[in-house]
Amino acid sequence: MSIIASISADVLKSAQQQIQQDLTQALDAFALPEPLKGAVYHAVMLGGKRVRPALCYATAALQPHRHVAAVRRAAVAVELIHCYSLAHDDLPCMDNDSLRRGQPTCHVAFGEDTALLAGDVLQSMAYEVLGSRLFDTGVAIESGIVLKQMQILATASSKMVCGQVLDLQAEGKKVNQEALENIHRNKTGALIQAAIMMAAVTIFKGTDPAIPQLRQFGQSIGLAFQVQDDILDVTAETEVLGKTAGKDLEVEKSTYPALLGLDAAQAYAQQLHDQALQALSYFGEDAQQLHAITQFLLARQH
Amino acid sequence: MSIIASISADVLKSAQQQIQQDLTQALDAFALPEPLKGAVYHAVMLGGKRVRPALCYATAALQPHRHVAAVRRAAVAVELIHCYSLAHDDLPCMDNDSLRRGQPTCHVAFGEDTALLAGDVLQSMAYEVLGSRLFDTGVAIESGIVLKQMQILATASSKMVCGQVLDLQAEGKKVNQEALENIHRNKTGALIQAAIMMAAVTIFKGTDPAIPQLRQFGQSIGLAFQVQDDILDVTAETEVLGKTAGKDLEVEKSTYPALLGLDAAQAYAQQLHDQALQALSYFGEDAQQLHAITQFLLARQH
Repeated sequence: MSIIASISADVLKSAQQQIQQDLTQALDAFALPEPLKGAVYHAVMLGGKRVRPALCYATAALQPHRHVAAVRRAAVAVELIHCYSLAHDDLPCMDNDSLRRGQPTCHVAFGEDTALLAGDVLQSMAYEVLGSRLFDTGVAIESGIVLKQMQILATASSKMVCGQVLDLQAEGKKVNQEALENIHRNKTGALIQAAIMMAAVTIFKGTDPAIPQLRQFGQSIGLAFQVQDDILDVTAETEVLGKTAGKDLEVEKSTYPALLGLDAAQAYAQQLHDQALQALSYFGEDAQQLHAITQFLLARQH
Repeated sequence: MSIIASISADVLKSAQQQIQQDLTQALDAFALPEPLKGAVYHAVMLGGKRVRPALCYATAALQPHRHVAAVRRAAVAVELIHCYSLAHDDLPCMDNDSLRRGQPTCHVAFGEDTALLAGDVLQSMAYEVLGSRLFDTGVAIESGIVLKQMQILATASSKMVCGQVLDLQAEGKKVNQEALENIHRNKTGALIQAAIMMAAVTIFKGTDPAIPQLRQFGQSIGLAFQVQDDILDVTAETEVLGKTAGKDLEVEKSTYPALLGLDAAQAYAQQLHDQALQALSYFGEDAQQLHAITQFLLARQH
């Protein structure tokens, strides 16, 4: 393992431990009736790469700040939104997937009605967490910052649904690269960018030139993530992927490998990563963690 | 028509016109792709009594204030949450209803996948609206108030889902009155109370004694609404109700008439209304609009 890969693994592992702990604490703070509680824990606690919280933490690490609790709440909130979207995506009327992260999907384990409601409640729980005092140790955060976090999260969540609709509309059709990018900027990119921007508005003032740099970074890394996902759907085995491989091809989804060919898709992923790193160069050494995650995302096999 | 009934009808009609106009303006501000856009408009614009926005406006009318735009946003947000819940409740994996407000339900008109996504996006749109500058004419509202609105809405939305789960769990079982009230305080009561409290925190300081009075009013009227709903399911015709009558009995739902008998259920509805009016007595003449709506809710036939 190269030194860079090893740093990436450490940053990711540390973020994963943090978010696992914080998600547990957050979920435990809710009084949910069974079987909803079981379904919510199932949807949230199975694991996954936790890329969004990791990006949230790594962005907050760009400078020393006193808003640790607010960043931790943002990371939990964005992951809850991500988990709600997965629970709903897997439903029979959507992708009808039975396997997620190597485990039965939420509706397979808990029934369709409970999986639907688990997704629904995860969405409102995200805003409850954001507006709570969870993880606070003293200094309360200004309301204006929480409000900005909420706006970013809500806008990205709506975009995510729009992207999902555009994606369903494109099934079985041949779309061009511009249309495909529009799908992915909404479907996946928006929430990844939100994870970064929720931290950004917490630690930087609205007028700070860091903000547009991070927005650019978020855009590039968000799209790069999806291109890589498309590539892995072609190249990886179901076992490694933890979800059904080759699924995109089967339902005639438009993907980057299908559109550009595998080699060109890989080159495009590399190009987007270079763009992401370019945006980070503004921060110099301070962006070490964001660098590490960017590196990990390009190298990932699942 | 008695004078009181006529005032009630006027207050309701005026609220309905206002919310119809504001919902249109709010939805038009979003760029949604088809068929999501069609499904969202279908779910939202079909009408309905608009009880929650009416309660929101009537609460804000308790005193002169300068936060008209924030109250209008709150009314839109709470109605979007209500509409999302209806779209999801009607889905085949839930109540499997094909008729709502005398029209085909969202999934009948647009397909299950689109109805699911319409519900999902309506939830995030509610928070987008809340955090927006929609309807603003000048004075921006303090972030702290919007944050409180968000907390109230998110908590009520989570409770609504919990109530839904408790309700499903109770089907075919005999539950006692305490359990039934717990279901309804969550499933219906929480969001009705939220409509009132979102306006309350906008126009009153947190320490104002008006706040607990309105919380009490919201609790009583929320439960009264559901008791009345149960009664109408037994007594009304499908045509008047705009949704399938007798449905509760069919799926062996626990209801107040089933638990207490029809007469006792009607007496209980009256008692809850009296409690609601008692809480309003604190406001004297200022609560005229809230009185009128309370009156309407007890007398309603659908």
